Amino acid sequence: MVVTRFSRLQHLLLLQPRFQQSRVLRHPLTRTPTLIRSVMGSSSSSSSKLLFRQLFEKESSTYTYLLADISHPDKPALLIDPVDKTVDRDLKLISELGLKLVYAMNTHVHADHVTGTGLLKTKVPGVKSVISKASGSKADKFVEHGERVSIGDLYLEVRATPGHTAGCVTYVTGEGADQPQPRMAFTGDAVLIRGCGRTDFQGGCADQLYESIFTLPKDTLIYPAHDYKGFEVSTVGEEMQHNPRLTKDKETFKTIMSNLNLAYPKMIDVALPANMVCGLQDLLPSQPN
Amino acid sequence: MVVTRFSRLQHLLLLQPRFQQSRVLRHPLTRTPTLIRSVMGSSSSSSSKLLFRQLFEKESSTYTYLLADISHPDKPALLIDPVDKTVDRDLKLISELGLKLVYAMNTHVHADHVTGTGLLKTKVPGVKSVISKASGSKADKFVEHGERVSIGDLYLEVRATPGHTAGCVTYVTGEGADQPQPRMAFTGDAVLIRGCGRTDFQGGCADQLYESIFTLPKDTLIYPAHDYKGFEVSTVGEEMQHNPRLTKDKETFKTIMSNLNLAYPKMIDVALPANMVCGLQDLLPSQPN
Repeated sequence: MVVTRFSRLQHLLLLQPRFQQSRVLRHPLTRTPTLIRSVMGSSSSSSSKLLFRQLFEKESSTYTYLLADISHPDKPALLIDPVDKTVDRDLKLISELGLKLVYAMNTHVHADHVTGTGLLKTKVPGVKSVISKASGSKADKFVEHGERVSIGDLYLEVRATPGHTAGCVTYVTGEGADQPQPRMAFTGDAVLIRGCGRTDFQGGCADQLYESIFTLPKDTLIYPAHDYKGFEVSTVGEEMQHNPRLTKDKETFKTIMSNLNLAYPKMIDVALPANMVCGLQDLLPSQPN
Repeated sequence: MVVTRFSRLQHLLLLQPRFQQSRVLRHPLTRTPTLIRSVMGSSSSSSSKLLFRQLFEKESSTYTYLLADISHPDKPALLIDPVDKTVDRDLKLISELGLKLVYAMNTHVHADHVTGTGLLKTKVPGVKSVISKASGSKADKFVEHGERVSIGDLYLEVRATPGHTAGCVTYVTGEGADQPQPRMAFTGDAVLIRGCGRTDFQGGCADQLYESIFTLPKDTLIYPAHDYKGFEVSTVGEEMQHNPRLTKDKETFKTIMSNLNLAYPKMIDVALPANMVCGLQDLLPSQPN
């Protein structure tokens, strides 16, 4: 009998009622609509603290995410997957909104564009670059599975989601009544909307990708690093039902991924060396780290 | 003394405390975070009923909006400013989400792309096209300032916001505890993020545009019909502070708008005749209305 990924995931979720329930019960201000939204699947996240913006870079179809805790006096902020070409746009917005940029984070070493983290560090002293330890890249702060990155009272949880590259992580907003509801997962290239990242270079592995996703509640919002069709957000539940690759059984998935015959990424020879040092290669040639 | 638009708008808002307060007091489930969010300015809207998606058409940088009441058994849905080229994408998403498309609406007669309403009507029998009466265009349903368009228990309020064209309207989500909080304004080309629509053709008028916007609460989310820099959303408060055109006094604004020297829109000769009949010109040649 072939056990499909979808049915196994449903099973996984059915094993988590206490997790779901405790989240609702612990909320001192719980009211029926919270539960309804959790069940029906919302398409935006609600929080009194979070300021959130999704920003788009058209040439590489990359999404950069801005998150800030606006209930904190400093309004500390972070950027996920900034692009070198749109750093000035992002910094202008951050300035207009009165935020203080603390972290410039990457979900992985990108092959299709140069990260904006290096430029951000030169333009905003004190900003720390962040990437996973497993990426093998340089950064000010390395993170591993299970760690947290905080801005004010908000935090992101780091989840290892290798497969597209060995060092891919997904950043997930925190759990609890004072964190955004539903949770938001910044999946990088691991899970795309109705797709997933290629697994044929940079230590990619279809097996790992297949095993590393979809353990979050169904209403979790998925914000990918790219979209090429004009979609901006999905949910774990939606991808479990409609993702044409990830709903297949594992062997079929591996066959699909090994037969994509994708072109060599046109930016890879520029982007990879730059991104392995977080975009700092030409900016800070004498910097040891 | 030159009275700037910003200071006049601040004054307008200060005159509306009863409106703001009554909205909070009437809410049977009011809790502190709702008020905080209202004051600090959120960047997403929360509702137990609303399913919301912003969709992007890259060539004309057009945003199409999908809204549905997922608490209603039929899950009735509407599209705002659909594009002919992305109708199949939109319908696939609507099908996957199990929604029933009821209305295909336009904020105005577009000059830069062909509306998808005609195609939607041929592909989904029963869908009604909607546009303002003042547009002079054809449609199944004409709306005027102050009217409502409902899907399930959710509704959009029609606000006349002429200036870019004589028939421009802004669709605003409803007011009240059972409607999305904060409110969402689909401004078409009237207000863009850090910009506004040109006012030099199709009955455009800088005077009218200037007078017709920014009467909504500061935390209202602004969702425009286009963005060319990768922004997706703003707020009334943000545009009141940072919009480089609309923060100027009226005479300066009119001078800016009359000196833009913009190129003739490359799609206008195709788009305008099509859009005046809601995109139906080649699809239903014998249809009288």
